[in-house]
Amino acid sequence: MAQRYVRVKTITGQTYYGRLQLNRTVEVLDAPPWLNGKVTDLILQESDYRLLPPCAPSKIVAVGKNYSAHAAEMGSDIPKEPLIFLKPPSAIIAHEQAVIYPKQSQRVDFEGELALIIGDRTKNCSIEDAKDKIWGYTIANDVTARDLQKKDGQWSRAKGFDTFCPLGPWIVRELTSGARIQTYINEDENEPKQSALLSDMVFSPEELVAYISQIMTLLPGDVILTGTPEGIAPLQVGDSVTVEIESIGKLTNFIEASPTE
Amino acid sequence: MAQRYVRVKTITGQTYYGRLQLNRTVEVLDAPPWLNGKVTDLILQESDYRLLPPCAPSKIVAVGKNYSAHAAEMGSDIPKEPLIFLKPPSAIIAHEQAVIYPKQSQRVDFEGELALIIGDRTKNCSIEDAKDKIWGYTIANDVTARDLQKKDGQWSRAKGFDTFCPLGPWIVRELTSGARIQTYINEDENEPKQSALLSDMVFSPEELVAYISQIMTLLPGDVILTGTPEGIAPLQVGDSVTVEIESIGKLTNFIEASPTE
Repeated sequence: MAQRYVRVKTITGQTYYGRLQLNRTVEVLDAPPWLNGKVTDLILQESDYRLLPPCAPSKIVAVGKNYSAHAAEMGSDIPKEPLIFLKPPSAIIAHEQAVIYPKQSQRVDFEGELALIIGDRTKNCSIEDAKDKIWGYTIANDVTARDLQKKDGQWSRAKGFDTFCPLGPWIVRELTSGARIQTYINEDENEPKQSALLSDMVFSPEELVAYISQIMTLLPGDVILTGTPEGIAPLQVGDSVTVEIESIGKLTNFIEASPTE
Repeated sequence: MAQRYVRVKTITGQTYYGRLQLNRTVEVLDAPPWLNGKVTDLILQESDYRLLPPCAPSKIVAVGKNYSAHAAEMGSDIPKEPLIFLKPPSAIIAHEQAVIYPKQSQRVDFEGELALIIGDRTKNCSIEDAKDKIWGYTIANDVTARDLQKKDGQWSRAKGFDTFCPLGPWIVRELTSGARIQTYINEDENEPKQSALLSDMVFSPEELVAYISQIMTLLPGDVILTGTPEGIAPLQVGDSVTVEIESIGKLTNFIEASPTE
């Protein structure tokens, strides 16, 4: 099994980067692995920690309409260049945390996506050099208030609510060739709502990193969301939603109502 | 004169928050002032530091069409709710730093704006409580590649280039009643391109903080850009651009060509 890189919070409140072992213990690193964190003597038992989102980015750059079948279902042409937008870091939650359904929306959709983790400070990078700037891969759900996305025109509110960026559970260094992404509701693995090959992307991860780096400097730990395939659909309070990517794992989150004040 | 709060880098590479005195010395604080930074014994002479952007936000939330005359010049109605978008923190530069004209654009505009600095973690805040969440005020220039803004639909690329968020020079705690914002090119103070009262905003700073906090948690040091008045116009390589707000000061930046590779 590929090495799984995690970020954890201990029951005593410390935050660490680490490597998750098959027996669920975590070997603690002394820094983020993309900043050459080294293994320490500290080992955390499963009862001693909970998973955090696997990185803490300075920004999340996301890409719209990067699978042609999804562009078609949205009534759009395939863009000639990547269409980028931003999600705020305050939206990030970990595996198994709750997505809070906002009062402002009547339709909240999942969008399963491959997420790239940047390893180096990256500016004006070529497509050829981009592979070395991607330190690893994880899973994201670009949760979207579809009604507000249409109403506002700009997507920042619709995609920017607290809890609207589930990320994790862990980071792996490499993807299997031909890996599939699938999204399903309430553990119904036999009827995935989304199912596509990562190789169906219009712009590859390396093309996205190169394009974005012509605009803005990417920093270590920054996250790029690579777009969602076709099959978007609404979530209901009480649902669980799972995004699965072969060679990474499963990211599961629960939909909860906004607390009444 | 109102107290001016700055962030500086010393010639030996340290970064500090501090208070700028009239003789240009800086009294160093031991933490950001909104996190109760206290004055230390360290005093920096003018030759020992340079100004940085006055805060280092986890996010920049900006507002579109928040002056009715600007909405009209853009061919838009006044929005019924604030229209929010995000700029990446990597776009921030300090007073007197260079805005780099990107190769991808043929039209780069200034947009002078009042910036709010958030002092507390803020979520679901009322308009009444919002005043206490605004720790202070500074000046921003929401530099925009107008051609790419129209082309993309989403504004993240057009407003997200490195150097496209000049911010500073310093933060003040209070604004004078009836303060005016003006933007001028090449020190031509007699012919400002933009000139409006801050009180002309469609949504007040308190209304903006309350609205945004219903969507996303604001953190100490986060920045809200409150929108630009009418009079937007293009910048040319070689220009200087100054945004002036009464009771804060002047934010000046220079437009430079992108370096050839």
